[in-house]
Amino acid sequence: MKEPELYVVIVGCGRLGSRVASELSGAGHSVVVVDRNEATFGKLSWEFGGFRVEGDATEMETLRSAKVGRADLVIAATREDNVNLFVAQVARRVFGVERVVARLHDPARQPVFAALGVETICPTLTAVEAFLARAGTAS
Amino acid sequence: MKEPELYVVIVGCGRLGSRVASELSGAGHSVVVVDRNEATFGKLSWEFGGFRVEGDATEMETLRSAKVGRADLVIAATREDNVNLFVAQVARRVFGVERVVARLHDPARQPVFAALGVETICPTLTAVEAFLARAGTAS
Repeated sequence: MKEPELYVVIVGCGRLGSRVASELSGAGHSVVVVDRNEATFGKLSWEFGGFRVEGDATEMETLRSAKVGRADLVIAATREDNVNLFVAQVARRVFGVERVVARLHDPARQPVFAALGVETICPTLTAVEAFLARAGTAS
Repeated sequence: MKEPELYVVIVGCGRLGSRVASELSGAGHSVVVVDRNEATFGKLSWEFGGFRVEGDATEMETLRSAKVGRADLVIAATREDNVNLFVAQVARRVFGVERVVARLHDPARQPVFAALGVETICPTLTAVEAFLARAGTAS
């Protein structure tokens, strides 16, 4: 059976954001990707059938253009932890989005994000898990 | 039952290498960590009970000091893909290590590493998987 379709807003179209956007769009979800640099949209794969919004996600107008208020899931995936925290907080507190996940560069900041109700994914930590799995050691 | 103990050499003691080293050492494995910058050893946790080798891992002498030839597993985890590829290749071809896993920054290089017999883990890709899992979409 097909999964219900989600409306997902992804902020940051770098190596990480562009892949997540392409995969989710390819899986049938409605995806809007936001980046202040239009050139990054070139990283999206041919699978991507969503919308692109060029703009600074720390400005409310940009988030409104992306219709963040209607999102089932917001992913803050820029390179900057502070931008991701800002976007995640605004999505939750101002727009009332229930599921917000932020990319976190510095694992030491995870408790702060958690205290503010923002789930995080840290590429370093997911890679650590993968290395430990190869060594046969569950973390 | 306790897992058999492994002799693991980890090259690169940054945020990723230091965590993997600390976890594996804490799990009872014999771990040697190599970095050209001694200051990075400060990232190791109190759990780490292994050895530290200060030196440039692209020099054979450094790898010999770390006793790479006796390793059950070598992990090349520096920030530089080229260094990781070099270390992985030398560990496999010169020292005959069977299990070598390299950290890969740029996913586009994965086929080259694979062709040379080097397993890779890319933090961006492990994070993409984690984001997709949160969206309920298996990749």
